[in-house]
Amino acid sequence: MSTPLYEQQSLKIYNSISSEKETFTSITPGRIGLYVCGPTVYSDVHLGNCRTFISFDLIFRYLKHLGYKVRYVRNITDAGHLENDADAGEDKISKKARLEQLEPMEIVQKYTVGFHTILKQFNNLPPSIEPTATGHILEQIETIKTIIENGFAYVVNGSVYFDVVKFNKSNDYGKLSGRNLEDMINNSRTLAGQDEKRNPQDFALWKKAEPVHIMRWPSPWGDGFPGWHLECTVMSRKYLGDTFDIHGGGMDLKFPHHECEIAQGEAACGCSPVNYWMHANMLTLNGKKMSKSTGNTLLPQEIFSGKNDILTKSFKPTVVRFFILQAHYRSIMDFSNDALEASEKGFNKLMEAIKSIETITPSKSTSEEFIIEAWKQRCYEAMNDDFNSPILISHLFEAVKFINNLKENKAKITSTDLEVLKTTLDAFVFDVLGLQANEEAGSDLSEKLDGAIELLIEMRKEARANKNFALSDQIRDTLFEQGIQLKDGREGTTYSY
Amino acid sequence: MSTPLYEQQSLKIYNSISSEKETFTSITPGRIGLYVCGPTVYSDVHLGNCRTFISFDLIFRYLKHLGYKVRYVRNITDAGHLENDADAGEDKISKKARLEQLEPMEIVQKYTVGFHTILKQFNNLPPSIEPTATGHILEQIETIKTIIENGFAYVVNGSVYFDVVKFNKSNDYGKLSGRNLEDMINNSRTLAGQDEKRNPQDFALWKKAEPVHIMRWPSPWGDGFPGWHLECTVMSRKYLGDTFDIHGGGMDLKFPHHECEIAQGEAACGCSPVNYWMHANMLTLNGKKMSKSTGNTLLPQEIFSGKNDILTKSFKPTVVRFFILQAHYRSIMDFSNDALEASEKGFNKLMEAIKSIETITPSKSTSEEFIIEAWKQRCYEAMNDDFNSPILISHLFEAVKFINNLKENKAKITSTDLEVLKTTLDAFVFDVLGLQANEEAGSDLSEKLDGAIELLIEMRKEARANKNFALSDQIRDTLFEQGIQLKDGREGTTYSY
Repeated sequence: MSTPLYEQQSLKIYNSISSEKETFTSITPGRIGLYVCGPTVYSDVHLGNCRTFISFDLIFRYLKHLGYKVRYVRNITDAGHLENDADAGEDKISKKARLEQLEPMEIVQKYTVGFHTILKQFNNLPPSIEPTATGHILEQIETIKTIIENGFAYVVNGSVYFDVVKFNKSNDYGKLSGRNLEDMINNSRTLAGQDEKRNPQDFALWKKAEPVHIMRWPSPWGDGFPGWHLECTVMSRKYLGDTFDIHGGGMDLKFPHHECEIAQGEAACGCSPVNYWMHANMLTLNGKKMSKSTGNTLLPQEIFSGKNDILTKSFKPTVVRFFILQAHYRSIMDFSNDALEASEKGFNKLMEAIKSIETITPSKSTSEEFIIEAWKQRCYEAMNDDFNSPILISHLFEAVKFINNLKENKAKITSTDLEVLKTTLDAFVFDVLGLQANEEAGSDLSEKLDGAIELLIEMRKEARANKNFALSDQIRDTLFEQGIQLKDGREGTTYSY
Repeated sequence: MSTPLYEQQSLKIYNSISSEKETFTSITPGRIGLYVCGPTVYSDVHLGNCRTFISFDLIFRYLKHLGYKVRYVRNITDAGHLENDADAGEDKISKKARLEQLEPMEIVQKYTVGFHTILKQFNNLPPSIEPTATGHILEQIETIKTIIENGFAYVVNGSVYFDVVKFNKSNDYGKLSGRNLEDMINNSRTLAGQDEKRNPQDFALWKKAEPVHIMRWPSPWGDGFPGWHLECTVMSRKYLGDTFDIHGGGMDLKFPHHECEIAQGEAACGCSPVNYWMHANMLTLNGKKMSKSTGNTLLPQEIFSGKNDILTKSFKPTVVRFFILQAHYRSIMDFSNDALEASEKGFNKLMEAIKSIETITPSKSTSEEFIIEAWKQRCYEAMNDDFNSPILISHLFEAVKFINNLKENKAKITSTDLEVLKTTLDAFVFDVLGLQANEEAGSDLSEKLDGAIELLIEMRKEARANKNFALSDQIRDTLFEQGIQLKDGREGTTYSY
């Protein structure tokens, strides 16, 4: 057996908790436990949410490409997520159920199916396990019992709260988000007895269900439902262990959600739950954060269909994916029509180059301008540097330029190098970036269309040979109206859509 | 508001428990609760499983078409299903996890994703709620407590069994499957103290987990897992109520699974759980039941790809769906290459007719041979007669014949009738049968291809006008090689794939 790729490459990951790029080492050699916070399934995911999931799909894909056996757990929040972070307001799913006149689990099903459909269109791989909050109520109750036993939670009137102040005496609450508990306490209003919490920073592990609350389960503290932060602690521990390798999520989850996960994990099992924390940055639209609550959003299906007020045309899912991967996952990215159009051009150029590799005839030597092994290693180095996909893509375009030179006989390549070029491009473009060639959708029609166009090109060639330029122009123009562009070159006529 | 369709039509359903077709009445006017037993997600679904789910998709679609608000619950069995029905053997999912060296929930995820992918290819609608067994452990424990309190279950050594003999004294165990408990007892081996059950007909509500068993939960009786029959009782009650309208499943689930569900429901809440029991019949291959355990199976993806030893070519999912719907759901159906090829021809004929409706010019009267309203009512009557899809399809082909006569000017139709014909065909073919027109996949390519072919047809017409028959034949033949057939008719040249 050959050495696995991950032993040949040195991967660095920016760890949010140290704010530094660290050399990655997995707990178990060759295996990685990866947990990513999934959606609360009470509405359609917007493109900002999708950016997070596409970012972690890129990471999952690269780790797999390196030869790691990755157990990727991404949850579905189907209960317990209240409207505001201070454990108040209605359950998001119950509220939507009331508005749409559906049973809460019908809301869950509707938006879970929608979420899966969109991610599949973006060619995201499904995670290894996709657990739900309602599927782990018993496990959550057991964990709460342990946290109470360990002295870090208290029961009030049928609810259970995590005691942040007490926890902070022995541990460090705030280390992920760089906050200090005393500052937080000084900056918060006093409770004046309006709240059952001892301290506003405390958070719910279990909430008593009011009589009208539909989503409720029996517990040692009476009927209720779990606090939102708890499910991720419980499900990551169950499927990945007390301490696991990588925990990811959107930047906005760093505080309080992930901070609370650290506190719960340490309180329940006395160890740090996560070795590497990763946070994907947000997508802005017109310079403002894309967010459900402000209404400043764009839905993926609005982009694919072209039915929106922002874009001048429709874009395919794989082009939108390419656009997203053209920014590093930790950078803020602004969405605009111009940026997307530029991505589409780049995408088509990349795909055309890959397609045309098949037509290249190898030579006895390779031009010195392009040292294939060095280029390949630069591609790996980009991804090893905290999954830097924009740098990777810039290297891919060096290859595109070289391929175009080969096509125009301005460069040469040996058959061995050609094979490496092809294999490396395929690996990075399709396996790692997860892009999809134009052909994949409707490949049968695509073949028929190729056949019909080839016939038309043949007839046009004949018409030109017979000096029938009216006919030759008619063929070219009619195809152009259909979005099919003929290009005459030294090697004959080619076409693109 | 107009009268809903379900008040204009009289639906009859064959009720397995009475073995008779009964006029259907829903518990709540205008609303239906429908529960269908879903898959145990430990392997790929074969075509026999798919037949069951396609049958109930047809039923779901027709009930919705009639204007009912249907809450369709279909579960995912992800724990508790043991290898044999006598509560012995390994958990099916745990066993597969051991064989594939995966965590049980990775097995669940892998085959759940596969199941959803296949059903989507068949154009099945997702159910309204898709609950899992592991997602309802607490609810199952609560139901077991109630059954014990009501005196119909006993605890032995950390397991809980349903007491069939005691239940049968006050209720009737065997009424669905037409069995008699005394006969069952007389025909079964004596236990000779080898089993903790009081009687071989008793079944597990909760099984004690051996130390090696990974899938385990705490309970009042110790660590264990729920019995397989229990989840359906618990989840149907939770989402549809103590008594609901329709319970469906494959014929092989009638005994013991559904019989046990009736017993559990009656023991837990003192009422009959289901008003109408429906069972879909099996698919045979080479005259033998398609079944995982015997290996006599064909996977849907083997049919779509053509990679199998049974069929001479590949078939599209919608053609396979059409084939399945050409038999009534309660009839045994045999799968063969010839039958599938015949279905494909029929399917294409139907789709061509629907497509060509657009080209028909209405007249001042409609030919007497085809009374449109009577035909429409015959379509409804077929479906009202226990969802008789093969009879419905035969009526659709009467319409196809009439459309072909219209195309050849052998018949006439008014614009009003034409509209009814079109609307009715669309409703039954796409909404109720759930078939998909050829165009739906890759519609963008499809438009380009249409454009290219139209251009070729135009050029061929010109060639013929110029007596250039060599060119005209070349166009026809080259397209034919691509699977595109040109047909010359009075109205000009049309084409089909």
